[in-house]
Amino acid sequence: MSGMQELLPTMQAEFNRLKTGIGEAFQKHGFLQIETPTIERNEILLAKAGGDTEKQIYKVVKTAELANDADQALRFDHTVPLARYTVEHMNDLCFPFKVTQIGRNFRGERAQRGRFREFYQCDVDVVGRNSLPVAYDAEVIATLAEAIRTLPLPSFVIRISNRKLLSGMLEELNLEQHADEIFGIVDHAEKVPPAKTVAALEELNIGSENVVKITTFMGLNGDYREVLRQLREFGFQNATFQTGIAELEEVFMTLEKLDTEVEARADMLIVRGLDYYTGTVFETIAPDYREIGSICSGGRYENLARHYTDQKLPGVGGSIGLTRLFYILQNYGLVEASDLKPIDVCLVPFSETEYSSVAKLADRLRADGKSVDIVLSDKKLGDKMKYAAKTAKYVAVLGEDEIKSGEYKLRDLESGEETVQEL
Amino acid sequence: MSGMQELLPTMQAEFNRLKTGIGEAFQKHGFLQIETPTIERNEILLAKAGGDTEKQIYKVVKTAELANDADQALRFDHTVPLARYTVEHMNDLCFPFKVTQIGRNFRGERAQRGRFREFYQCDVDVVGRNSLPVAYDAEVIATLAEAIRTLPLPSFVIRISNRKLLSGMLEELNLEQHADEIFGIVDHAEKVPPAKTVAALEELNIGSENVVKITTFMGLNGDYREVLRQLREFGFQNATFQTGIAELEEVFMTLEKLDTEVEARADMLIVRGLDYYTGTVFETIAPDYREIGSICSGGRYENLARHYTDQKLPGVGGSIGLTRLFYILQNYGLVEASDLKPIDVCLVPFSETEYSSVAKLADRLRADGKSVDIVLSDKKLGDKMKYAAKTAKYVAVLGEDEIKSGEYKLRDLESGEETVQEL
Repeated sequence: MSGMQELLPTMQAEFNRLKTGIGEAFQKHGFLQIETPTIERNEILLAKAGGDTEKQIYKVVKTAELANDADQALRFDHTVPLARYTVEHMNDLCFPFKVTQIGRNFRGERAQRGRFREFYQCDVDVVGRNSLPVAYDAEVIATLAEAIRTLPLPSFVIRISNRKLLSGMLEELNLEQHADEIFGIVDHAEKVPPAKTVAALEELNIGSENVVKITTFMGLNGDYREVLRQLREFGFQNATFQTGIAELEEVFMTLEKLDTEVEARADMLIVRGLDYYTGTVFETIAPDYREIGSICSGGRYENLARHYTDQKLPGVGGSIGLTRLFYILQNYGLVEASDLKPIDVCLVPFSETEYSSVAKLADRLRADGKSVDIVLSDKKLGDKMKYAAKTAKYVAVLGEDEIKSGEYKLRDLESGEETVQEL
Repeated sequence: MSGMQELLPTMQAEFNRLKTGIGEAFQKHGFLQIETPTIERNEILLAKAGGDTEKQIYKVVKTAELANDADQALRFDHTVPLARYTVEHMNDLCFPFKVTQIGRNFRGERAQRGRFREFYQCDVDVVGRNSLPVAYDAEVIATLAEAIRTLPLPSFVIRISNRKLLSGMLEELNLEQHADEIFGIVDHAEKVPPAKTVAALEELNIGSENVVKITTFMGLNGDYREVLRQLREFGFQNATFQTGIAELEEVFMTLEKLDTEVEARADMLIVRGLDYYTGTVFETIAPDYREIGSICSGGRYENLARHYTDQKLPGVGGSIGLTRLFYILQNYGLVEASDLKPIDVCLVPFSETEYSSVAKLADRLRADGKSVDIVLSDKKLGDKMKYAAKTAKYVAVLGEDEIKSGEYKLRDLESGEETVQEL
């Protein structure tokens, strides 16, 4: 169906391998797995959604009901259910609450290649009660980096900024009334020619000096020490900007300690659009495969559940959009089903007489962790061998002779090599 | 939300452990994992659904649309999407297609304790092209038995029958026009007093002799050889009944060869109601916990995708309803969160100075497969230790002294025992 990803078994095995790898990386970093329902009450979902997202929400109604009466819908991300979950179970959770959700989310996007209406997201979040050290922003980034390393991507770079920098700058320039538009323009800048960005800024009638300052700001990227030096050169003294500088520095310094391998750079183009982030923001690109877009993004939100509670719950989180990423990895040939055989050993009993002995052998191989298929089909031996060649890495035919001798031949279906094994 | 299961992280870890165990058992038996979309077209879903199921289907509509216009809905089981999948990808699949789906299904059931509107089902199916040996009925049962053995249940029994037996009996007695009612009565017999079952049969005006024959039939259960002997005593010679006997015998004989440990018995009460099964049918009970009901059930269907293709695709499958089962296991105290600590080691750096050394230690422990949480919180040491005690199995505090000496104390949070480890 259009807008849905459906994979053949060999590809599905590869998808699952990547998903498991990501989940293991999260767990090794001490994130606790939870699952929230796919269906949530509208009042919960709509509290946060807006704009396109609201239009894309799938309402769910029982057959006899009308959509206008629907008070339930499918979740469009993991953050909204997490907010509801954290408030609901607050007294049973330990804070900071390090949590991961890996599951399907739903958006009724316009059908087009590479856009999915039902898609896996792999999220990590740390939620504090009242406060949460900035060091956790670095921990979330380090954890996601560890997860991305498990994927078949040759290299990747994490681009980090802090929304307080652009906010503080606009405060300083008295342009706060244009904040939404300017955040939008910066967010879009990579998707349009530079002249268009400048034109969009000029249209706001904010003065050419301010346009230059903003475009200069947008151009800052690279080693964080150098970017911080250039940011300080602006000379903005307001608290928002200064906090932005301090937080950005702390994130990079902590990240260096927590993950010495990660390639991270400061990049002022990263603002995460109209999102609800309030501090650190990040995106991740693969330099050799720029068209993939951001593999993983996220940031800091000052108050996770402001819609449902007075309790202040600051958090930081990020998400890997696995369904879209997998689609693109396939297109680039970075995952290939041709090499994948989900079954380890295919055992072909010559006739029913051998079922018992073959089942005993299968038990032994399974106890060793092998995936073993016993072919019970009444087809000809040739057909059974064809089936084995398509599904398994190894095959063995077991008949009267093998049972008697206690030995059988295990054939490597790729090399054709045979080894004699004890039954 | 009512009708949804939502677990705290410790319980979720246990749920995931059980789900993973089931999936591994399926994979070890050579079943290939697939995932089908949660959202399917109505025409696909409604082709099979009927009765209560149809009323329980969740339609999905985008915010602006009306339910009457909805042409999509949430899947209510895995079998319908499997039928569509098999037809759609027929030329890319190997037959017999041994396939497993583990995922969430949706039914808008009346809210009540232990009934869920969104629930996990763990399915295995074998689909043949044109034909499929009865031996696969046994293979599906053996695989499910292997999966159930991974669950915290002291013992279980698989109850097996074949729908051709009751069908053949009704043919012989010229009661085919009452088949639906009689299948329904037999299916319900365990939920009502015996007198009510007899009364329901008598209401059909089928003659007291036939009522006796049917109730005698219903009472047959136990060792399959004995039940087969009693079935043969009826003396029904029609092909349907005789095929039922032959198939039931073959399922048991093959099962004995494939799984010598399984406790299986013939039981004529098993008919799987108005379901679409055509041959073998089975349910599974835990004798010590009868109230759990059937842990796992399934059967043989002669034609999986008759609604979408002329191609004959006979199959056999079964499903473990994990969400409901887990709920009941919790109620019986067969899973307890109190013993569960999802994090292996909690590392507490005394201050930021130790982050680098602690991160290096964490990397080493994670490479060994451990789940390691580094506490970055700015709270007091006492608070950090409380957090560790709630989430982790072991804790270590690392300060200047530990870094200098190259040794640290790892404390077992259950026993309180401390061991000195190299940093």
